[in-house]
Amino acid sequence: MARLFRRTSEKAGLAPGSLIHVGEKRVEKTKITIIDYDQAAFGEKEVATVAECFPFKETSTVTWINIDGLHEVDVIEKIGKHFNIHPLILEDILHTGQRPKMEDFEEYIFIITKMFAYESETDTVRTEQFSVILGSNFVISFQEVSGDVFNALRDRIRNGKGRVRRMGADYLAYALIDSIVDHYFILLEKCSDRIEQLEEELAGDPQSETLQDIHNLKQEIVHLRKSVWPLREVISGLERVESPLITENLSMYLRDVYDHTIQVIDSVETYQDLLSGMIDLYLSGVSNKMNEVMKVLTIFASIFIPLTFLAGIYGMNFEFMPELKIRWAYPALWVVMLSVAGVLIVFFKRKRWL
Amino acid sequence: MARLFRRTSEKAGLAPGSLIHVGEKRVEKTKITIIDYDQAAFGEKEVATVAECFPFKETSTVTWINIDGLHEVDVIEKIGKHFNIHPLILEDILHTGQRPKMEDFEEYIFIITKMFAYESETDTVRTEQFSVILGSNFVISFQEVSGDVFNALRDRIRNGKGRVRRMGADYLAYALIDSIVDHYFILLEKCSDRIEQLEEELAGDPQSETLQDIHNLKQEIVHLRKSVWPLREVISGLERVESPLITENLSMYLRDVYDHTIQVIDSVETYQDLLSGMIDLYLSGVSNKMNEVMKVLTIFASIFIPLTFLAGIYGMNFEFMPELKIRWAYPALWVVMLSVAGVLIVFFKRKRWL
Amino acid sequence: MARLFRRTSEKAGLAPGSLIHVGEKRVEKTKITIIDYDQAAFGEKEVATVAECFPFKETSTVTWINIDGLHEVDVIEKIGKHFNIHPLILEDILHTGQRPKMEDFEEYIFIITKMFAYESETDTVRTEQFSVILGSNFVISFQEVSGDVFNALRDRIRNGKGRVRRMGADYLAYALIDSIVDHYFILLEKCSDRIEQLEEELAGDPQSETLQDIHNLKQEIVHLRKSVWPLREVISGLERVESPLITENLSMYLRDVYDHTIQVIDSVETYQDLLSGMIDLYLSGVSNKMNEVMKVLTIFASIFIPLTFLAGIYGMNFEFMPELKIRWAYPALWVVMLSVAGVLIVFFKRKRWL
Amino acid sequence: MARLFRRTSEKAGLAPGSLIHVGEKRVEKTKITIIDYDQAAFGEKEVATVAECFPFKETSTVTWINIDGLHEVDVIEKIGKHFNIHPLILEDILHTGQRPKMEDFEEYIFIITKMFAYESETDTVRTEQFSVILGSNFVISFQEVSGDVFNALRDRIRNGKGRVRRMGADYLAYALIDSIVDHYFILLEKCSDRIEQLEEELAGDPQSETLQDIHNLKQEIVHLRKSVWPLREVISGLERVESPLITENLSMYLRDVYDHTIQVIDSVETYQDLLSGMIDLYLSGVSNKMNEVMKVLTIFASIFIPLTFLAGIYGMNFEFMPELKIRWAYPALWVVMLSVAGVLIVFFKRKRWL
Amino acid sequence: MARLFRRTSEKAGLAPGSLIHVGEKRVEKTKITIIDYDQAAFGEKEVATVAECFPFKETSTVTWINIDGLHEVDVIEKIGKHFNIHPLILEDILHTGQRPKMEDFEEYIFIITKMFAYESETDTVRTEQFSVILGSNFVISFQEVSGDVFNALRDRIRNGKGRVRRMGADYLAYALIDSIVDHYFILLEKCSDRIEQLEEELAGDPQSETLQDIHNLKQEIVHLRKSVWPLREVISGLERVESPLITENLSMYLRDVYDHTIQVIDSVETYQDLLSGMIDLYLSGVSNKMNEVMKVLTIFASIFIPLTFLAGIYGMNFEFMPELKIRWAYPALWVVMLSVAGVLIVFFKRKRWL
Repeated sequence: MARLFRRTSEKAGLAPGSLIHVGEKRVEKTKITIIDYDQAAFGEKEVATVAECFPFKETSTVTWINIDGLHEVDVIEKIGKHFNIHPLILEDILHTGQRPKMEDFEEYIFIITKMFAYESETDTVRTEQFSVILGSNFVISFQEVSGDVFNALRDRIRNGKGRVRRMGADYLAYALIDSIVDHYFILLEKCSDRIEQLEEELAGDPQSETLQDIHNLKQEIVHLRKSVWPLREVISGLERVESPLITENLSMYLRDVYDHTIQVIDSVETYQDLLSGMIDLYLSGVSNKMNEVMKVLTIFASIFIPLTFLAGIYGMNFEFMPELKIRWAYPALWVVMLSVAGVLIVFFKRKRWL
Repeated sequence: MARLFRRTSEKAGLAPGSLIHVGEKRVEKTKITIIDYDQAAFGEKEVATVAECFPFKETSTVTWINIDGLHEVDVIEKIGKHFNIHPLILEDILHTGQRPKMEDFEEYIFIITKMFAYESETDTVRTEQFSVILGSNFVISFQEVSGDVFNALRDRIRNGKGRVRRMGADYLAYALIDSIVDHYFILLEKCSDRIEQLEEELAGDPQSETLQDIHNLKQEIVHLRKSVWPLREVISGLERVESPLITENLSMYLRDVYDHTIQVIDSVETYQDLLSGMIDLYLSGVSNKMNEVMKVLTIFASIFIPLTFLAGIYGMNFEFMPELKIRWAYPALWVVMLSVAGVLIVFFKRKRWL
Repeated sequence: MARLFRRTSEKAGLAPGSLIHVGEKRVEKTKITIIDYDQAAFGEKEVATVAECFPFKETSTVTWINIDGLHEVDVIEKIGKHFNIHPLILEDILHTGQRPKMEDFEEYIFIITKMFAYESETDTVRTEQFSVILGSNFVISFQEVSGDVFNALRDRIRNGKGRVRRMGADYLAYALIDSIVDHYFILLEKCSDRIEQLEEELAGDPQSETLQDIHNLKQEIVHLRKSVWPLREVISGLERVESPLITENLSMYLRDVYDHTIQVIDSVETYQDLLSGMIDLYLSGVSNKMNEVMKVLTIFASIFIPLTFLAGIYGMNFEFMPELKIRWAYPALWVVMLSVAGVLIVFFKRKRWL
Repeated sequence: MARLFRRTSEKAGLAPGSLIHVGEKRVEKTKITIIDYDQAAFGEKEVATVAECFPFKETSTVTWINIDGLHEVDVIEKIGKHFNIHPLILEDILHTGQRPKMEDFEEYIFIITKMFAYESETDTVRTEQFSVILGSNFVISFQEVSGDVFNALRDRIRNGKGRVRRMGADYLAYALIDSIVDHYFILLEKCSDRIEQLEEELAGDPQSETLQDIHNLKQEIVHLRKSVWPLREVISGLERVESPLITENLSMYLRDVYDHTIQVIDSVETYQDLLSGMIDLYLSGVSNKMNEVMKVLTIFASIFIPLTFLAGIYGMNFEFMPELKIRWAYPALWVVMLSVAGVLIVFFKRKRWL
Repeated sequence: MARLFRRTSEKAGLAPGSLIHVGEKRVEKTKITIIDYDQAAFGEKEVATVAECFPFKETSTVTWINIDGLHEVDVIEKIGKHFNIHPLILEDILHTGQRPKMEDFEEYIFIITKMFAYESETDTVRTEQFSVILGSNFVISFQEVSGDVFNALRDRIRNGKGRVRRMGADYLAYALIDSIVDHYFILLEKCSDRIEQLEEELAGDPQSETLQDIHNLKQEIVHLRKSVWPLREVISGLERVESPLITENLSMYLRDVYDHTIQVIDSVETYQDLLSGMIDLYLSGVSNKMNEVMKVLTIFASIFIPLTFLAGIYGMNFEFMPELKIRWAYPALWVVMLSVAGVLIVFFKRKRWL
């Protein structure tokens, strides 16, 4: 079952803003990596303690602090304290299963999304919650596990390719979201492949598992849709927000990623329509098969039951049955029987059951 | 049947604002408890008469007056008179079966919601109407029965944990709603467990009761949805209301509980989709089974009916049937019969009915 | 059929504003009753001619003129002329089958609704169009037949119970609408009872009439919904209208009756969902029954058709059939037959058809 | 098929504003009639050439120029040139198959609607496009064929009945639309009659044609709905338009015709619901019939197949079958057979198949 | 499968604004044609290098630069650089599979649409992305392949027919969109023809392929709808945009093409309804056929199975069966048998199965 909401009852009764990690522990140790750059310089390191991130708050360079793993609550808490993040936001970050949303505080903007990473080795999709805090010259991102969809972006930063090194922290935050949305298209493709495969199965010899598969794919697409739909509002929220943190020349890029989310939603809806149509086809296929089975039964039964009756008549042991003595009675009966069968066959042909 | 509206016809014809309790009498005696606190002090007592609540209206501390049981109309009436509550509001409190709503009077804000308390011993869900009146430094809450979802909140007040002791009456009202919404998640979990269980039944050997169960769960979820949907408007109403009763730093918390209601609604809709999909699967399973039954019948009938006919032929008593005299006729007929059966079996194999 | 629109073609081609009664003549003679009151005094009489109403237009007391029966067009016309009502409004009053609506003229406010009066003796619901004209100190109401849902209100006016005697004509108009909405709840209850009864039928032994009954109830609920939905707009229109005819302290009451209409709509929608679910259950019940019928047929046929074939074999009259001479052949055949039957029974048990 | 859009591809590639008649040629010769009136005078004539209309543009009386037949493009073109109509508007007039719409030019207002004229002799409905140009003191109307729904209106103008002679060109335009909407009610009635008739067929002995008929009626209602829905916007557009061409005291009348269109839409939606419900009833009726057929088959086969088997047993020719020699064996077998049949009949009665 | 989105994963990971052609390479070589005109002059040529287009940017005449083929990225890039087009726009042009949209930059307006070109020789529809850049006195259009729907427009420009030579670049851009929308009507007609053909198949002897065909057509119509729906917003965006690039007298034309898109959407929705209704008819046809098959089987089996039983009785070999000795027993049995058959036939006639 597509379980959208984890066991959140663990939290019921706690004070709002209580920091407790809700979700599976999916990584051994929290990993913190720092990428620090401006147009000229670039630095990248993995740090051991949270405190090592703090100096970067003040520098004029753009700093991307990435945290993999959410179960070490005190790490998140320290970052929250130093960067002055509201406890309810920290709670949202820790409490996986949030709906994508965007909130504007004066000092920072908070964005929460779902990241879908397709892993080609295992042919599975890893879903995780991805939270971003965009400050004046830093971006802090929180992931549930290490391994993400940002390797290409990291390469662009390292090599100074594209615009990212020339632009500010807001562009970095945009680039993160853009990478996530780009990976939605990979998912769509997998869905599309699966749909084609199911269509072939349907056209060939559908099994009852086929319907179950269509049904499951439909559920997964509903799941995807639930993640993308609010993302649309998040991005249009970013476009409209009046904050010094988002510079004017970002709006063009936001509009672009907005268009992409609309495209994803469009595809998802098309896929849903396709799958609904396929369910209808499957069900009518079942009915058609039943019809065929019934026709075969009816033809056999309707032809042979009357003939068996006739044979039964002359199998009776009455002493006075004049037909039994007649020499040509037996072949005559065969003629009668074949005529009956012939008439019935013509009748069924007319009805196009044969 | 999920009966959303109690026998309200008892009331038809009465003047608007007439105080009469509509609903079952669910508790023996009305119980009034008072919790009074500020950051420094804390007091808690159960009072015998309504009048004992009145002094707390004037104190500067935050007072939470909780009333369990609505059938003693005069208690409600006295409170209404002393705290200056409009008769129509009192009518709403007494008349269980209201839709969640929020109304802003200048002196107080009135909120009505549905509380779902899961009782693990009996594995049932108790629904009751929960009304809150938020005044300048007091909160009056009305419940149908004693026993609620606020024990954890009471502990936080008693022990001074969390923010609640440091903040005003508006935070207390928020905390009450937050507790209610948190308990919706427990319900969602129960639904999710039930859905999983039903899915297993479906995948195994579904009975006709399974469909009835899916149907019932769907009705209950509709019921839940009807309670949560208007709650969304209530909370967004609280966010927007311009009242001195709601301080500015509450908005962050209201937005948080608003997000939670959206999550509940999202889950509820996902569950509805899931259950609809399960009904489709059930029905197609019924069709598939019918198909299988028909195939078995058709195979048996189509093979043996022609053979029985052949046997019937040579059971006839005609005097002149040359085949009967032939020595190898009997084994020859067996050969013919087995060939016919063989051809039919091949035919059915080709059709993949075997 | 739930006929929402009467034979309005009688009117096609007439000039707009032509006064002609469209609808059945449902009462013998138009009856005019006048209730006149203020906080101190109260008078009530039935008048013979329209002219007797006219003096009340000028008095400072609140006057309620109620007209039962719409077919005496000249009565309506005279009232219209004296009270200065627009001809199109008079047309709407006479032309039953209107959609509930509210219109604000400066001198008066015009409201049209549907009144559902449940008559317990005959267990039927009488629907009629109810129009109200609210002037500065008078209310004129138009009903199709005598007999309405206002007796309790009349008693309250006579006895000075409730607020009605202390308040103005606007409160009277409100009280009329409130009475109508209160009676919708009685209807909802009847629906709810009927649904429960149908659910029991469904759980027991549903007939094909059951489906027809569900279907009919669904149509009636659609009919109810069509009447209540626009009423919602009517009342919210009254809340928003800026007219001296509606005093400020009425808004509280309007909001209350607005909440009630929302509740009615909520119930109606819940009932529609319930009935749709019941139709699905009914249909799947039909499929399940068919399955059971088919299983019985298949079991009988599949067991006995092969056995009959075997019996047919040894009923043949070939001269050379060695088995017929063997002493233990007959009991041996019985053993074979019972084994075949046993194997098939095990097979059907495995398939859980037995 | 309800073809909403005529072969418009004839036009693809032409310059916008090219005047070409798209639609069937439905009348032999274009007919132009002029009705000219004020409160005092009245004149009516049929003119041979377009030019005869031109003088009426300047008179102070209200002039209604009606054109029947759209295929003589030059007639339309000349009118367009003289009355200063935009070529795109002329294109819309000629190009039948437009969606109802309203456009405000400063000099004139352009309205396009669908007219449904029921012809009782042939029991068919004639659909045509009806365009109106409302100028300062003239109305030009364009119809596809002669014969329309305005005869009653013409009589009112001729005889000076109603308000029409006392009011301006705007009232005339309103009166035309009002006549069209009034005739929608006649159509609704025909639909309602047809639905009742189909309901009776359903309750009696539905044929497979019944479903086809329901389906066709549903399509026609969709067609009607497509025409009425935009008309609603047209009229509310006229209400809101700020043009000297529409005087203030018309708004009351526009609101009235607006209410009528809402009523039409309401009915149409009710009819759609009814027809959908009827399709469900039909389909479940098919299932119920199948069930009944299957029950009859199952009862016959299940009772007689075992009995035939028993008869087959004692029809075998084994030499050593002790039962055959027993005197009372034959009647005993009858007893056994009747018992078996009795048990099965009881079994089927219990299952309520009998 | 209607694949709305091409393999866009090729792009995932690239910097936003990276120019890479996403889509099939559908033409051998990029072709650039220039049409340059004002009211007096006209020139048309195919150029070999991009640079030849650049001088036209400055001329006062209207210039239409059309590019067929998108895979030569450097051509697009050079144009972008010279005409100062934003890289993200260039990316959209190259990345086929965009949703129709309109964006207003100060220097130019960017429009993206889907072009459907029906090719009568092959009876197929070619879909391609069509992008337009509208500058102050030039229009640049980008197509995936050569061959388009603008030949009639080109002729009008060449011959100076219609308004196009007298008006500016904005009119040219409008005329391009208008041509595209005009061709949607051709598609609609093809759909309509196909629907009629499928309706005939349905009324005649539907095969299981018929359902597949209906299903496929429905998918194609969904595809069309997805392209037209956003086009509506594009055009209403153009109407509302406040840009010096769009002159005031264009608004009339934009409103006209807007009406056409609404008509297309209306048709598309009607077709969807029609096809859904046809699927229902098909499925109920399958059920009706099954019913007929079952009736035939039931009639044959129910009549002959009891008769065969009777024949079986008198085929038994009991020594003491008094009936066998009776002279008239055999004809008497025939009478009994015919009576049984007669009774059953009457029974089936009553049930209207015969």
